[in-house]
Amino acid sequence: MARPTPLSGFPELLPSARLVEQHVLDVLREVFELHGFSNIETRAVEPLSVLLRKGEIDKEVYVVRRLQAEAGEESGSSDDLALHFDLTVPFARYVTENAGHLQFPFRRYQIQKVWRGERPQEGRYREFTQADIDVVDRGTLAVHHDADMARVMGEALARLPLPGVTLQVNNRRLVEGFYRGLGLEGDVLTGSIGATMRAVDKLDKVGARGVADLLAQAGLTQAQADGALALAQVRAGAGDLVASVRALGVSHELLDQGLEELLAVLTAVDDLPADRVAVVADLSVARGLDYYTGTVYETRMRGWESLGSICSGGRYDALADDGRDVYPGVGISLGVTRAIIPLLGKGAVRASRPTPTVVVVAVADEAHRRDADRVASALRARGVAAEVSPTAAKFGKQIRFADRRGVPFVWFSQEDGSHEVKDIRSGEQVLADPASWLPPAADLRPTVVLPEA
Amino acid sequence: MARPTPLSGFPELLPSARLVEQHVLDVLREVFELHGFSNIETRAVEPLSVLLRKGEIDKEVYVVRRLQAEAGEESGSSDDLALHFDLTVPFARYVTENAGHLQFPFRRYQIQKVWRGERPQEGRYREFTQADIDVVDRGTLAVHHDADMARVMGEALARLPLPGVTLQVNNRRLVEGFYRGLGLEGDVLTGSIGATMRAVDKLDKVGARGVADLLAQAGLTQAQADGALALAQVRAGAGDLVASVRALGVSHELLDQGLEELLAVLTAVDDLPADRVAVVADLSVARGLDYYTGTVYETRMRGWESLGSICSGGRYDALADDGRDVYPGVGISLGVTRAIIPLLGKGAVRASRPTPTVVVVAVADEAHRRDADRVASALRARGVAAEVSPTAAKFGKQIRFADRRGVPFVWFSQEDGSHEVKDIRSGEQVLADPASWLPPAADLRPTVVLPEA
Repeated sequence: MARPTPLSGFPELLPSARLVEQHVLDVLREVFELHGFSNIETRAVEPLSVLLRKGEIDKEVYVVRRLQAEAGEESGSSDDLALHFDLTVPFARYVTENAGHLQFPFRRYQIQKVWRGERPQEGRYREFTQADIDVVDRGTLAVHHDADMARVMGEALARLPLPGVTLQVNNRRLVEGFYRGLGLEGDVLTGSIGATMRAVDKLDKVGARGVADLLAQAGLTQAQADGALALAQVRAGAGDLVASVRALGVSHELLDQGLEELLAVLTAVDDLPADRVAVVADLSVARGLDYYTGTVYETRMRGWESLGSICSGGRYDALADDGRDVYPGVGISLGVTRAIIPLLGKGAVRASRPTPTVVVVAVADEAHRRDADRVASALRARGVAAEVSPTAAKFGKQIRFADRRGVPFVWFSQEDGSHEVKDIRSGEQVLADPASWLPPAADLRPTVVLPEA
Repeated sequence: MARPTPLSGFPELLPSARLVEQHVLDVLREVFELHGFSNIETRAVEPLSVLLRKGEIDKEVYVVRRLQAEAGEESGSSDDLALHFDLTVPFARYVTENAGHLQFPFRRYQIQKVWRGERPQEGRYREFTQADIDVVDRGTLAVHHDADMARVMGEALARLPLPGVTLQVNNRRLVEGFYRGLGLEGDVLTGSIGATMRAVDKLDKVGARGVADLLAQAGLTQAQADGALALAQVRAGAGDLVASVRALGVSHELLDQGLEELLAVLTAVDDLPADRVAVVADLSVARGLDYYTGTVYETRMRGWESLGSICSGGRYDALADDGRDVYPGVGISLGVTRAIIPLLGKGAVRASRPTPTVVVVAVADEAHRRDADRVASALRARGVAAEVSPTAAKFGKQIRFADRRGVPFVWFSQEDGSHEVKDIRSGEQVLADPASWLPPAADLRPTVVLPEA
């Protein structure tokens, strides 16, 4: 078998990088559970017909078929299965399938791989891990949940070994209401409202002048174009949001409702540590406005803005619908792989060692391996990860074995029943008892290191 | 959208069952890490050509293709991707791909979903979770690792909320050597040795008489058939293994080697708690003898033998081979889904409550929601999972909300700044301080309950 080559877009981590990822997932789980989110996992596949209902994603879907499927079964039929491309569609399906067994409002978190057949590039993968939180209710879902999602994900982001982030919040009702107040018509997909949303979404790429040209082409008056551009340039906190928007002199009932909702989100999260997670109203956030119905979230890491949004979401007034009840939901999804692989690649985060082992128990000769096993068992009984040396080579070689894999301690047992443990970083070697020895707390488990911090 | 129906073979758990599964995965991770295993994950897909190299599995493979793959690309070509059907083939590929970055012997655990297009039945799924440990070395791998795998998985099994198990160990060299000593010829796949292995594998199904018939058809003499059947009936511990086999009066160099290896495994694990994990040499274990090269393991849950082996593995003298080096390995794989879904279905294990939340903070009216948020934050800061009531309904209704989801405590804040917490099981309500209150340790997190125990 020749050495295989990696598949582009399907990243795999070495053990030390995986330790960083595990730490990230552990923090997410802890924060989400402290906030009362239940965990679920959904199957990797959904009927193709369910996935394609979302429209524009069809190019990105991976179809799954048994190799030995009956001859004559046609590929690409609507009964085919496909790998899920996000965790929202499967969650909506899970809710309708299990509604009778769930208590609403239902808070769930879900951390799984998803697959998209996109062209791979930095921050874009074909297989990647997402961590989603959502709350869903039957009938109606109170608006305070929109703030709650931002707070929970904000707390998690603040504790992760990532650069500080900016959580940008916008509101579809605010934007649409503002456009209506300007006299625009249509909806998010059609007419001058749709054209304006698509143009503003290009602000990053083509600049204010480029957007102004697009708006003129779409038939907006100069005043309307100026208004739409002015709204997109609003960046505000809870203190100045209302004044900033009112200063633009537009009024509409839907704008009032959206403004109130957005203010409520900003106000409720004002206790997040701003150096780690700055929450701002950013009225240029346009992506997602066409399928979310109220609040939308995006998140950028400071210094890593080129990765785009690592954490996005929003509110659906009809996340799911089983024909009898409608289930509104609001949620936010962290692109774990997208956020951490670039950091790992640039050395901006790493594990203190690549293995959980904190001590290697040396073996004097193979006849004494059982004794070494017993020492290791005694250490493990108190939570000390211990490995017995794989060989009874000379002690120098066993120490090098430990050193090569970053294990800080080596244990030696003497014929007289005494024991010594050596810190191979300092060379210090001391008497120790397998029934009571503990390493310094900082060495007990691998930790995550931020070299720049 | 009509209510969807489940896909046969793709089980999904309700939140309370998922809590049991998470507990199982947590225990596995803890035990594996205490023994110095590093975690990795591999991508879900492998080239079809890599998966089909294993032969008989081809009917079970799911091929994966982009829906919008270029027209003219033929499906079923060797460049296609397919979902992995186990974690061993991907691990072997990972080892050769990353050999330059790994320290050998390399101990890794891997807990992931795998997919097989088999007909679903109890204990057999199309998507299921496996938890694998393996150790792999370059060149040669010392035989003490075979005992180590049994010990590590045995420790994990002993701590899991499962019925007691019997870990059955056999050795390919022992069996093949014994057959050669009887005068049989060929190898595990061919000749009278292959025929005998296939016949003995049917012992459970056709009984001793049925196997004897098969052996006669394969051309074995009466004495050879008696010998092969007698060997398959040996069940022994470390104390009587050698005598039991020697009593059959067969000798061969390969038998001696296999017997020594098997004895070493049994001896090294004699400290496992036998009521939880009984380790026996079971010389009828034949499955896997055709691809493993030494030790083989199977595991059955007492009272649940009809599920078959829930935990199997063995030694490969050439787990991987990159054309320059050969990488022998030994490992064992727990079928997590296979073991726990039947137990969950029969009510033999359950979670104490379906949500991590231990306290619901009541909301007197919406104007006081921020105060309730602050109480919840103070509780979470000490690890108490807290949820703020989704509505400011009458307190009775908020208590029923908590009760319905199994949350044991409800928190009330008074206008005068005092707080009370109610245990809704006993009805007891006491003064409490959000900065110091803790629930009883047994209530802090959901626990796993064995109703029969």
